[in-house]
Amino acid sequence: MAIEFTVFKGSKSGDIVEARGSREVGPTEALIKITHSGVCFTDEHYRHVDQGLGHEGVGTIVEIGSRVHEISDFKVGDRVGMGWFQKFCGHCKVCVRGRQNLCVHNEQFGTANHDQGTFATGIAWDVLALFKVPDGIASEDAGPLMCGGATVWDPLFSNGARAGDRVGIVGIGGLGHLAIQFASKMAFQVVVFSRSESKREEAVSFGATEYHATQGRESLEGITPVDFLLITANTLPDLTPYVPILAKSAKVFPLTISQGNIVFPSLPLVLEGISIVGSPLAPIGSQRQMLEFSALHGIKPQIEKFPLTQTGITDAMQRLRDGKMRYRGVVIVP
Amino acid sequence: MAIEFTVFKGSKSGDIVEARGSREVGPTEALIKITHSGVCFTDEHYRHVDQGLGHEGVGTIVEIGSRVHEISDFKVGDRVGMGWFQKFCGHCKVCVRGRQNLCVHNEQFGTANHDQGTFATGIAWDVLALFKVPDGIASEDAGPLMCGGATVWDPLFSNGARAGDRVGIVGIGGLGHLAIQFASKMAFQVVVFSRSESKREEAVSFGATEYHATQGRESLEGITPVDFLLITANTLPDLTPYVPILAKSAKVFPLTISQGNIVFPSLPLVLEGISIVGSPLAPIGSQRQMLEFSALHGIKPQIEKFPLTQTGITDAMQRLRDGKMRYRGVVIVP
Repeated sequence: MAIEFTVFKGSKSGDIVEARGSREVGPTEALIKITHSGVCFTDEHYRHVDQGLGHEGVGTIVEIGSRVHEISDFKVGDRVGMGWFQKFCGHCKVCVRGRQNLCVHNEQFGTANHDQGTFATGIAWDVLALFKVPDGIASEDAGPLMCGGATVWDPLFSNGARAGDRVGIVGIGGLGHLAIQFASKMAFQVVVFSRSESKREEAVSFGATEYHATQGRESLEGITPVDFLLITANTLPDLTPYVPILAKSAKVFPLTISQGNIVFPSLPLVLEGISIVGSPLAPIGSQRQMLEFSALHGIKPQIEKFPLTQTGITDAMQRLRDGKMRYRGVVIVP
Repeated sequence: MAIEFTVFKGSKSGDIVEARGSREVGPTEALIKITHSGVCFTDEHYRHVDQGLGHEGVGTIVEIGSRVHEISDFKVGDRVGMGWFQKFCGHCKVCVRGRQNLCVHNEQFGTANHDQGTFATGIAWDVLALFKVPDGIASEDAGPLMCGGATVWDPLFSNGARAGDRVGIVGIGGLGHLAIQFASKMAFQVVVFSRSESKREEAVSFGATEYHATQGRESLEGITPVDFLLITANTLPDLTPYVPILAKSAKVFPLTISQGNIVFPSLPLVLEGISIVGSPLAPIGSQRQMLEFSALHGIKPQIEKFPLTQTGITDAMQRLRDGKMRYRGVVIVP
């Protein structure tokens, strides 16, 4: 059997283009009727490319492949989320290390799926790369957790952070507002850095224990150093000003997809054992735990809703581009 | 009781200056008659400072403090080595994490000990920061292992590298020639990068499985990527040319004490999960294992010997500065 769907793609001009697609179910795949999709800034990078957009989909399984029962307990009717990767090999060096998100075959899988995306009414997805959405999470909230949530969760979950550690978060946006909630519920001290004072109250409501406005401030010295620093700003700031507030053996996570170079003074990095860690989405197990944890603690994105149509997607992406989204857009199949 | 010693210090002019010192034994300290000390490029950074030089000392315990038996089994007559840190608190946040080398009180301990150094005939040292030298290691070989050896060992020991992983080593010098030996005996594939062809044969004799001369080469593309990359060159090279040979989730260790900035392209760091890791010497347990491992596998530095005198130290440091040392200098009490 097969699924037929509408999918929205990028195009050379940057306009969002509606297309039709269909998919037979592969032996280890599920066919999914999509209901919601988060809108992530990374989609912006593909707006000028002829490929399906969207990678924070949520929907319901309508069909499973012949071998799905051998490798999972997914069944028709399950409510599921999809993350960045649609498939991974499971046996390459990085997969074996639990980093399936970096599977060395990702590109080749990706190329075969450029006609798919979660800005769509349906999709075929490998069940090993699917996530059950816990009952406590609404579908509209689950979308932004699939990429945005996982992106800020994993640095805190997989890198040795422990209760009571000081976690710095630079920027309050689609990623930052989720990072504050996670860090707070994960029992860290949450130290938020934002340009102006304007988001102080909101940051505290998300769980910030400290708030520092950086604009007009000559130096960050005097702030108690942080053990982990998540950079969630849309463009990568020069990291040098943050050196004085990094504890010994601190880990810095630049989380934004951004051109240009990371610049960091050599001496403190070596002498104080600081690391700059690239963290490209979460491994499978980490992402599952993120969803359970979110359900347990009522962590959810603050969202703005748009219809999953050519106009709705165009509007949502424009709003995100203008820096006006508070804080994550979700497109919903009408 | 006390120890009296000759110690060689830096000075404003950069000349090596001979001085006399003495030390009462503290309750948790040992007094040590030094016999050998490695000469490390880091000493160069203190040549213009009025403080004791040398931090790769080896010698024999001649006296122990009143409480040493409560916290260790060190005794008079033990042959011991000293690393970078002379003392650590043991209970600060970084000590508790096993990174005593980064103890937040290091600076304060350091200030109290500026009249000491291992370019000396004697020293007082906290026993918690002492290392027994295994029988299989000659004192003259043990010196350079205390800092140089530990510096290249720990990145490979403490960061998840596993048998068969590809380890890249940039530069063959005091650090690099030890790194090649460790990486080889630790069951990694050892991929050496050196400017010219001149050290190929020697690198292979140390255990290199691949050797790549970089001079005149436009790009490193085509070389199978490495999982770990140790930068042991005296000055920090621009890391951009190494991007094509970094495997997904690779870790890069800039190991040299060098001014300037670390520069690395943002996109591959984030998308491929690459980390740049500051690795400031080894934690205690790691350094102990390094010594045992060196004894077990006959790993030792290739050394040039000088007398531990004003002239000997001056000559050794000059030779190191000129880039002529093959590969590590050791000064020996006459």
